Amino acid sequence: MIIVLKPNITKRQETAVLKEIRKLGYRPHVMRGVARIVIGAIGDERTHQSLETLMTWPQVENVMPVQRRYKLVSREAHPDNSAVPVRNHTIGGKKFHVMAGPCSVETEKQILKTAEVVKAAGATVLRGGAFKPRTSPYEFQGLGEKGLKLLDKARKATGLAVVTELLSEQDADLVAEYTDIIQIGTRNAQNFQLLIAAAKTGKPILLKRGLSMKIEEWLLAGEYVLANENSNLMFCERGIRTFESYTRNTLDLSTIPIIKQESHCPIVIDPSQGAGRADLVIALCKGAVAMGADALLVEVHPHPAEAWSDGAQQLTPEQFARLMHELQPFIRAAGRE
Amino acid sequence: MIIVLKPNITKRQETAVLKEIRKLGYRPHVMRGVARIVIGAIGDERTHQSLETLMTWPQVENVMPVQRRYKLVSREAHPDNSAVPVRNHTIGGKKFHVMAGPCSVETEKQILKTAEVVKAAGATVLRGGAFKPRTSPYEFQGLGEKGLKLLDKARKATGLAVVTELLSEQDADLVAEYTDIIQIGTRNAQNFQLLIAAAKTGKPILLKRGLSMKIEEWLLAGEYVLANENSNLMFCERGIRTFESYTRNTLDLSTIPIIKQESHCPIVIDPSQGAGRADLVIALCKGAVAMGADALLVEVHPHPAEAWSDGAQQLTPEQFARLMHELQPFIRAAGRE
Amino acid sequence: MIIVLKPNITKRQETAVLKEIRKLGYRPHVMRGVARIVIGAIGDERTHQSLETLMTWPQVENVMPVQRRYKLVSREAHPDNSAVPVRNHTIGGKKFHVMAGPCSVETEKQILKTAEVVKAAGATVLRGGAFKPRTSPYEFQGLGEKGLKLLDKARKATGLAVVTELLSEQDADLVAEYTDIIQIGTRNAQNFQLLIAAAKTGKPILLKRGLSMKIEEWLLAGEYVLANENSNLMFCERGIRTFESYTRNTLDLSTIPIIKQESHCPIVIDPSQGAGRADLVIALCKGAVAMGADALLVEVHPHPAEAWSDGAQQLTPEQFARLMHELQPFIRAAGRE
Amino acid sequence: MIIVLKPNITKRQETAVLKEIRKLGYRPHVMRGVARIVIGAIGDERTHQSLETLMTWPQVENVMPVQRRYKLVSREAHPDNSAVPVRNHTIGGKKFHVMAGPCSVETEKQILKTAEVVKAAGATVLRGGAFKPRTSPYEFQGLGEKGLKLLDKARKATGLAVVTELLSEQDADLVAEYTDIIQIGTRNAQNFQLLIAAAKTGKPILLKRGLSMKIEEWLLAGEYVLANENSNLMFCERGIRTFESYTRNTLDLSTIPIIKQESHCPIVIDPSQGAGRADLVIALCKGAVAMGADALLVEVHPHPAEAWSDGAQQLTPEQFARLMHELQPFIRAAGRE
Repeated sequence: MIIVLKPNITKRQETAVLKEIRKLGYRPHVMRGVARIVIGAIGDERTHQSLETLMTWPQVENVMPVQRRYKLVSREAHPDNSAVPVRNHTIGGKKFHVMAGPCSVETEKQILKTAEVVKAAGATVLRGGAFKPRTSPYEFQGLGEKGLKLLDKARKATGLAVVTELLSEQDADLVAEYTDIIQIGTRNAQNFQLLIAAAKTGKPILLKRGLSMKIEEWLLAGEYVLANENSNLMFCERGIRTFESYTRNTLDLSTIPIIKQESHCPIVIDPSQGAGRADLVIALCKGAVAMGADALLVEVHPHPAEAWSDGAQQLTPEQFARLMHELQPFIRAAGRE
Repeated sequence: MIIVLKPNITKRQETAVLKEIRKLGYRPHVMRGVARIVIGAIGDERTHQSLETLMTWPQVENVMPVQRRYKLVSREAHPDNSAVPVRNHTIGGKKFHVMAGPCSVETEKQILKTAEVVKAAGATVLRGGAFKPRTSPYEFQGLGEKGLKLLDKARKATGLAVVTELLSEQDADLVAEYTDIIQIGTRNAQNFQLLIAAAKTGKPILLKRGLSMKIEEWLLAGEYVLANENSNLMFCERGIRTFESYTRNTLDLSTIPIIKQESHCPIVIDPSQGAGRADLVIALCKGAVAMGADALLVEVHPHPAEAWSDGAQQLTPEQFARLMHELQPFIRAAGRE
Repeated sequence: MIIVLKPNITKRQETAVLKEIRKLGYRPHVMRGVARIVIGAIGDERTHQSLETLMTWPQVENVMPVQRRYKLVSREAHPDNSAVPVRNHTIGGKKFHVMAGPCSVETEKQILKTAEVVKAAGATVLRGGAFKPRTSPYEFQGLGEKGLKLLDKARKATGLAVVTELLSEQDADLVAEYTDIIQIGTRNAQNFQLLIAAAKTGKPILLKRGLSMKIEEWLLAGEYVLANENSNLMFCERGIRTFESYTRNTLDLSTIPIIKQESHCPIVIDPSQGAGRADLVIALCKGAVAMGADALLVEVHPHPAEAWSDGAQQLTPEQFARLMHELQPFIRAAGRE
Repeated sequence: MIIVLKPNITKRQETAVLKEIRKLGYRPHVMRGVARIVIGAIGDERTHQSLETLMTWPQVENVMPVQRRYKLVSREAHPDNSAVPVRNHTIGGKKFHVMAGPCSVETEKQILKTAEVVKAAGATVLRGGAFKPRTSPYEFQGLGEKGLKLLDKARKATGLAVVTELLSEQDADLVAEYTDIIQIGTRNAQNFQLLIAAAKTGKPILLKRGLSMKIEEWLLAGEYVLANENSNLMFCERGIRTFESYTRNTLDLSTIPIIKQESHCPIVIDPSQGAGRADLVIALCKGAVAMGADALLVEVHPHPAEAWSDGAQQLTPEQFARLMHELQPFIRAAGRE
């Protein structure tokens, strides 16, 4: 921790700070600069109390942490890339993956049809929501367990792996029974109880970035998964909330090199949620591939205009087939398969 | 719903839109403007599927909803102010309330001491976290049930009502047993399962605004409470996330007149979380009172520099007493007691 | 400056950093912490090059400045409040001021009428735009010099002081001839050439906060005024751009205590631009008064629905009279006149 | 324009709205929905006053524009891509361009050296700031005219075209004399006087996106250029301001497909300003190429650690050469040369 003192304070005020730093378990180291006194507080910031509390003292101008707060998710702790096993696949290795499917599971016909077309086009994982977090209580809330069973049916019919969202701690075991990857959605990205329950199922976790989550907070949310003895974590960027309203969110593709730099975990990009409009999805996918993403999560629906949720961002099967075709040269250029 | 068509589309493309609108249960009404064809889709937006899915069609430029999506929380549905009964008090009536206490319950001595001083200064509700959502898994996570019991002890000792945060659906009944108001924190503001579980306890709910929640989304999260047959809802503004880093969050005081205009529920302001720094709290409280807030939620700790969480924003007992004193003329000016 | 080195770097890498720090004119001071080596670079950050350039080196993890970059606007440099003389008034002293008038000067009748009514209600300064920065080139761009002359006429007729916006360096002398306060608008808050030209006229400057300006950047923009030998500077908060769309901007009232803490210059609040909707203006004004603002800037128009610009946020004369009446108890409670 | 009335208003209130709509030059068209009365106001929104002023009336709930406000920059007006001639090159055609050079022109040696290395690596345009907008008045403000002359020298020595920023209307002719492209920086993106002065020189304009500019505002700022009879406009995305602090700004790569969709003008990406850190630049460039950008603007400096401005984001010559090499397969995959 670095503590910056205000100018023109008394010796007594300075001494009080030093004493408090020692009391809180750090060793103070004073530097007298030209305009300010700066104190380095030496000690492990992860095991001691934060000194930011000193901000309440009138003689303190600023307190700045020095250490990264995440440990297990960091590349410092694990220099090689982690690869996450998902059924007969590995996400985070040389092979590039595409996860695709409808926003919500609606009917048997809809999910089976979608599973077939996305598989035919080259996807390896089927997405589909059975439990849906909806802004309004009057909107379709998902088919629940029935939806999980339909996903399982589609999985058996096609051999695709399945990713679906978990909304409630109480459903963790149920969802784990039917899915290959548990998705933690953007609204629950700091619902730590849910993260812990999901981690404990042992299933791979796909952790979406919260709508206004800083990179450090996202990594720390991931830390909750690894700290609960589940090392199969994937980060998924899906757009952050900004002032721009042309798109529903602003997809932050710079997270790809950032996550690769800070962490060993795979990074997945969701351009459908990111843009909230189907007409931008293909271009965003190309960017994600070129920048080194490990996988994509893309919404596809047989009839987007009649989708029960988020239709504006879902591709038709034809658009998805075109996407998969157009991605090929970029996947090769990125050195992936 | 209003659907704006692109210029220069074919008659066939226009007809297809009209047909789809009818299929989805609305009655289309065409207006030919000077530059665009605009279609009004007549029907109840709250019971029909959103037509925003039409955005995926190439001939559609824009789709704009017309109705408010919230109902039970709206002033349209309930023109008079609602007042929420909390023990022997009423929040949302003529009397202005102050809820105060530490960020976290730490020790018996700490919580009893704080309860006494805030009561002496005029607070009517004691705040204190027993279950703490922490950004890092290595930070103090709260005392849990033991913390609830200490709150109860302080409640009995002082007669103050208690507000504390609920983090897990599974703890809803436990928390309800010890508290007078259940707080839903900012990170869980769209954890709808938790909102439903909290609502079902029948306890008054204090719903904090999510870090990047639009007003409409906040009202709709509140709608989950009322739709689950709990009418004792209070909204609590605690700062939104913006680009500014001088303060931890940006306290949006304009929510006071907005919530009063859109809803009948009380509005509470939390300037401690809002600013993240104690030196701004008193001024923000004055603003909140003047603008018509129904209550304040203020963090107070016997020794902020040694607080186990969020010390930088907690007032000392002396600062809190000064705050309560300085608020008096503003409470009178606002016509409150 | 504080330089944090990455863990596990070589001695040679560390030495290279120390050498570069010395080369750039600072004296390095090494602290070896438990997890990181931290270097304090001692020297005046305001006269030496920033060391943030060291971020490009692979062995450097972070670089953090220690000093505030503003000097003349800071309270450190000038502990007492500054008061700005405006004709026969002083802004920033015990008397609270209200500046009011239309968004744009439209006609002689409109501006004279408005000047009369705002004066009658208690305003001391007349606002009105003659040069208007408009998002679209097809919108009304202001009457220009003719507008300035109408403002002057209203000034003579009523004795009100005048504040109007300067858009072009080339008009600095012209505008200075007709106005008592030169306003620098939000879009030009970092148009430093314009700030310098305005400062050099010697007129008091009202500097609006840029739409996404951090506090520090705003203070530094003000520093351009004082560094050009004009000490009559007022800061004006007018809302920042956030994700919220219910209001046009988010008025950040916490700037009142912050500017008072960091600077000696007066702070003015513009709730009309801040909210972009007239129905919130009265409540926001009350909050601003209670929190210690020195003045308000409020838009008033005889017929808002027919205003040539920004009608949605302008008060009618009746609403303005009500505002002035309702503000009285809050002005007294704040200890102002 | 669409006007939504509040529920439960009187017939007289409805009639008043219709009368005012007619008075302001539109033809009202009433639709009675299930929950609201909606009025379509038929007329050209670009030549009539905005009806948003009606928001001040108590019976009006919402006013929504229907038309796009930009015309000349829109693809609707000009369906084919525009290509901008820059010396012997064309930007916006099949050939992909890289503009590179230091943040600021510092010395003759520095700019000549950089020009040589970026040319050798394949750049076609040299960037370099002679007039620098700096947050603090105490920072290096650029060499001014001397810097322009050094750019000209480098241009003659290498045959590279030159892009440099214009800061003041008064320097428009001077800058135009020495540069091939005039850059309007992010802080001046809505300095309309500067945009007009730049447009009138007839030189190609590179218009950076303002720090918190919505897409529509950016297009409208571009409209100022085309409306002043200069059709050689390029848009340049350089990151927007968000809550994230890991990067200086958030580079919004979705602007590439959006600008391509809405406008016929070329789109250039500036990843150096976008990220504010050199370690992310290469990945961001790859994404930009894959998504269809027409050119890149990249900062390169012989010794970034000693740069006089913004060193943290500048590449070394070696890093730039590597970038140009690694981009090749993505340029081919994108179908560019």
